[in-house]
Amino acid sequence: MSSALSPDELEEELRRIGAERYHDKHPFHRLLHGGALSFGQVQAWALNRYCYQAAIPRKDAALISRLHDRALRRIWIERIRDHDGDGQRDPGGIERWLVLTDGLDLDRDYVISMQGTLPAVRFAVEAYVRFVAERSQLEAIASSLTELFAPAIHRERIGGMLAHYPFVGEDVMAYFRRRLTQAPRDVAFALDYVRREADTPERQRAVTDALRFKCDVLWIQLDALHHAYVTPGLPPPGAFVPRETVATAKLAAEPAG
Amino acid sequence: MSSALSPDELEEELRRIGAERYHDKHPFHRLLHGGALSFGQVQAWALNRYCYQAAIPRKDAALISRLHDRALRRIWIERIRDHDGDGQRDPGGIERWLVLTDGLDLDRDYVISMQGTLPAVRFAVEAYVRFVAERSQLEAIASSLTELFAPAIHRERIGGMLAHYPFVGEDVMAYFRRRLTQAPRDVAFALDYVRREADTPERQRAVTDALRFKCDVLWIQLDALHHAYVTPGLPPPGAFVPRETVATAKLAAEPAG
Repeated sequence: MSSALSPDELEEELRRIGAERYHDKHPFHRLLHGGALSFGQVQAWALNRYCYQAAIPRKDAALISRLHDRALRRIWIERIRDHDGDGQRDPGGIERWLVLTDGLDLDRDYVISMQGTLPAVRFAVEAYVRFVAERSQLEAIASSLTELFAPAIHRERIGGMLAHYPFVGEDVMAYFRRRLTQAPRDVAFALDYVRREADTPERQRAVTDALRFKCDVLWIQLDALHHAYVTPGLPPPGAFVPRETVATAKLAAEPAG
Repeated sequence: MSSALSPDELEEELRRIGAERYHDKHPFHRLLHGGALSFGQVQAWALNRYCYQAAIPRKDAALISRLHDRALRRIWIERIRDHDGDGQRDPGGIERWLVLTDGLDLDRDYVISMQGTLPAVRFAVEAYVRFVAERSQLEAIASSLTELFAPAIHRERIGGMLAHYPFVGEDVMAYFRRRLTQAPRDVAFALDYVRREADTPERQRAVTDALRFKCDVLWIQLDALHHAYVTPGLPPPGAFVPRETVATAKLAAEPAG
């Protein structure tokens, strides 16, 4: 029988999982941040990532619907507000994401409809919503801990995308700038909760498994993007096809000379 | 095949259901508002009704977790805030309910633990949470329409309880005063939604059934209270026993002479 880790050891283990599995290690992100993607590939990324953004408030509401502790609900509800906005001063994270897709010349109705997104992305996102709705409260909260690693990727993204893409401006990066302050506040609470509540080997295992699961949810979205839009670059039937890909395909299909 | 009702006809039908089935018609409420209950019976009512109050934010979060429309989520989230408060200026409806139970000399930890509440009440409340989590969005929203009838019962309750019970003061009635303004705002939205969305006989039937279901949820709580604390006055094992009931039972059990 193994004994329980100390809270610090547990946190180290969580950070080790992030270092190994968080999607900042995915080749697609290196291409994105390094300026190696075409306009159409960046469009595909923003379009698909919208599925994830749009699902986050439902995921957080699913958790709140299971919390019997009023104080905990009051803290967690801030996340819904952050993403949905208040309809007044704060437009919210989803709206900021739509500013990003606007800036990439994607039609708003098309983005919101999720027509054209990759099924693998939608499946991964819904798996996350179901996980939070159905697993234990501890696992549901632990699955948010990828935010531990988010500020680093957001900083890298803001710098890299602004430097490398002429079609990316400050306004378009507003989503990530805002998350630089929101994510650390959110994760501080979740990390504290997990350090306190995961006090047996079984509960610690549940927590680390939940973080691995969540890393899978994020990673698999980039796998799908990479397959569809980089190598081999084969979007599944019905999925978004960037204009220049169409053009290239058309050129390639034209008989030589 | 019957044809669909007009929105006005549907609203009339909903109001008819309320006139017949809303729990203001229950004998227990007539006793409560008419000053016919003992201190212990009013305690039992407040203690059990806490189960319902405490579950409302979970119910509303369950609905939000299913709403794909951001604007709708933004409106519905106000209900959670109303009940849970914001942890700052607004203490929220649950806190106001605890002021009521404080005022009735019930220990707060005991109330929050729900130890001592009637199982039938807890079952009814959880049936409501599950209904909202599992039925269609239209049915979930329609089940909130008992709020159409709430202001009348709250006004009657404030007047009746203040007039009849020396142990009930203005502070204790704060919950109901606040609901006098919150409920009409909430129900205006839900009624408008239902009038607009329930446009076929099938969807209208789903809406009226949802309202009937919700009336059952409320009614059955009073049935359980009436059985346990009025006639025959037999609380199930483990349930709250008012002090004067204990005293009476003890006297009755003492041998004559």
